[in-house]
Amino acid sequence: MLETTIAAIRAADEAAMAAARELQGRLTKPAGSLGALEELSVRLAGLAGVCPPPLPEPAAVAIFAGDHGVHAQGVSPWPQEVTAQMIGNFLAGGAVVNAFARQAGASVTVVDVGVATPLPADPAVLDPAVLDPAVPRLVVASVRRGTRDLTMTAALTRDEALAAVQTGIRIADELIDAGAGILLTGDMGIGNTTPAAVLIAAFTGADPLDTTGRGTGVDDPTYAHKVAVVRAALARHTPDPADPLGVLAAVGGLEHAALAGLILGAAARRTPVLLDGVIAVSAALAAAAFAPAAVGAMVAGHRSAEPGATVALRHLGLDPLIDLGLRLGEGTGALLALPVFTGAVRVLHEVATFDSAGVAEK
Amino acid sequence: MLETTIAAIRAADEAAMAAARELQGRLTKPAGSLGALEELSVRLAGLAGVCPPPLPEPAAVAIFAGDHGVHAQGVSPWPQEVTAQMIGNFLAGGAVVNAFARQAGASVTVVDVGVATPLPADPAVLDPAVLDPAVPRLVVASVRRGTRDLTMTAALTRDEALAAVQTGIRIADELIDAGAGILLTGDMGIGNTTPAAVLIAAFTGADPLDTTGRGTGVDDPTYAHKVAVVRAALARHTPDPADPLGVLAAVGGLEHAALAGLILGAAARRTPVLLDGVIAVSAALAAAAFAPAAVGAMVAGHRSAEPGATVALRHLGLDPLIDLGLRLGEGTGALLALPVFTGAVRVLHEVATFDSAGVAEK
Repeated sequence: MLETTIAAIRAADEAAMAAARELQGRLTKPAGSLGALEELSVRLAGLAGVCPPPLPEPAAVAIFAGDHGVHAQGVSPWPQEVTAQMIGNFLAGGAVVNAFARQAGASVTVVDVGVATPLPADPAVLDPAVLDPAVPRLVVASVRRGTRDLTMTAALTRDEALAAVQTGIRIADELIDAGAGILLTGDMGIGNTTPAAVLIAAFTGADPLDTTGRGTGVDDPTYAHKVAVVRAALARHTPDPADPLGVLAAVGGLEHAALAGLILGAAARRTPVLLDGVIAVSAALAAAAFAPAAVGAMVAGHRSAEPGATVALRHLGLDPLIDLGLRLGEGTGALLALPVFTGAVRVLHEVATFDSAGVAEK
Repeated sequence: MLETTIAAIRAADEAAMAAARELQGRLTKPAGSLGALEELSVRLAGLAGVCPPPLPEPAAVAIFAGDHGVHAQGVSPWPQEVTAQMIGNFLAGGAVVNAFARQAGASVTVVDVGVATPLPADPAVLDPAVLDPAVPRLVVASVRRGTRDLTMTAALTRDEALAAVQTGIRIADELIDAGAGILLTGDMGIGNTTPAAVLIAAFTGADPLDTTGRGTGVDDPTYAHKVAVVRAALARHTPDPADPLGVLAAVGGLEHAALAGLILGAAARRTPVLLDGVIAVSAALAAAAFAPAAVGAMVAGHRSAEPGATVALRHLGLDPLIDLGLRLGEGTGALLALPVFTGAVRVLHEVATFDSAGVAEK
């Protein structure tokens, strides 16, 4: 399944990109005046293989949730139970991601790929085919109840990592089959910025000091300890960026692996993926290592305050749409960026040309 | 009318701001994890005088249109007739501002405060009380058919400038009376980045090289000429920033003056104004000179590619929500930022607290 998905990912369609560039030049606005939105519209035409590319509607957020053995090393001030408790909050509609998703008209699908503690009772499991923004749903696809402690051993076996990647591909397929025009990445997992920092260092070669941040807010001693944990993990596993499954198994998380699969699945379907923050971009590095052309399906929603996000975005060659110092995860930054994304596409659909509007050119 | 408006503008409500800060700390997210959105929500509580502040719905874009005598100096490659032609495009729903307004559910009101050439026939004048996103409307409130050439003489008399400011105040009142929860600034006027560059230099003391940009796209010789025009205007008029009406009369435009009035009118009603690009922020400097507390009602929608916008935003102490290299005007950058603004407020209305959601704290 992973091999066929990777084989289905193709390069951008140059003719559609040329058509989008030409159309941008005829619309009633000065050439280039929409800045980054113009180039985004061209990229999306290339991904879709048609100009204009389809409006990204409806939008679907997929929040992959998992826990982390490295939590035992004291890398987060939050108890591990918060992962499961926040899933309850997502399904009850009370989290920031729910507020932003309702505003944007996006559905929310929570996928348990490896939560350690029991999920809230009666989690309102719903028909997975429904893309209803008002009703969050839960998919249970747990590979194991949290990863192993990556400071001691490999976080996952290769088979476990592969199972999580394939879950991500399957969720992408199901959401796109249900009609989704764009997928937004979300994540939940207490401690998950630590494996993200290791993944980003492994795939980019950057120093752990530049890939490790304060996550949900750790103090100075905890931050120094977290950097040491990241450095020790790299020294123990010496992950090989040419073997992305091996990297995900050694130092990743189940939600990171599943997000890499979601991105690959979307790219194989020529459907854009709007990336959230540091967890998403660490997974995007893995997806790009599996299939470099997958970058063509990626749009960076925002620049997380986590420093590793900037390192990863630079490596991927992506400029984010929003840069407001967010570091919440869940998919919140991607949701804030969705209207900008949609606006970039809408221009190609709805704006009059100089000819059609009877406006003189310079 | 101007005096009573200025007198009605009050400082932020500290109690409401404290309540918003306290509420942000109890919501189910790490403290500070929403970055700039948290401080924005606090500012808006201070403006509204209540926590949570109202959701900014419905939104209303006001596009003030005017022409410029300085166009005769060759500061723009576009014919002056394009101002009127683009009004036709706005009313037909074919411009980028219309596409973005439909997406955001915002109404579009075009106000002719000084267009030089005849407006398109049958411009679909509508009931000014209607805030219908689907039907752009035109208000004719022309002070004169374009300004005088500011390189030769004052662009406007003080009475003309005052009339435009008062038109802006009136439009703010009408839109808010019709129910608007937020006003977005828009502008249209071939040549209007030249008076904006003069205004920004006048109010901030910055050098014309730092306040003058390429507008809709001028070549190197035209750019050098444009900087010289801005410098000559400052030398001729020596505008006094303590006399904002005098500055607007000497070197402003009718749409700049009206936008200053719109901002003052909104601030007097404790209603937020989402600023678009360089024309908006040059007008915002005038509004702040009339009433420093008016800054409390301003939110910078985006950072225009025009360098003067950054100079003005720094002077006002405002950080923009979006930074994507746009330089189109019309209100397009403000509209792209509207969902971010709304999201910041929505969090205070809809997100669960740790207590209510049963989520443990760190």
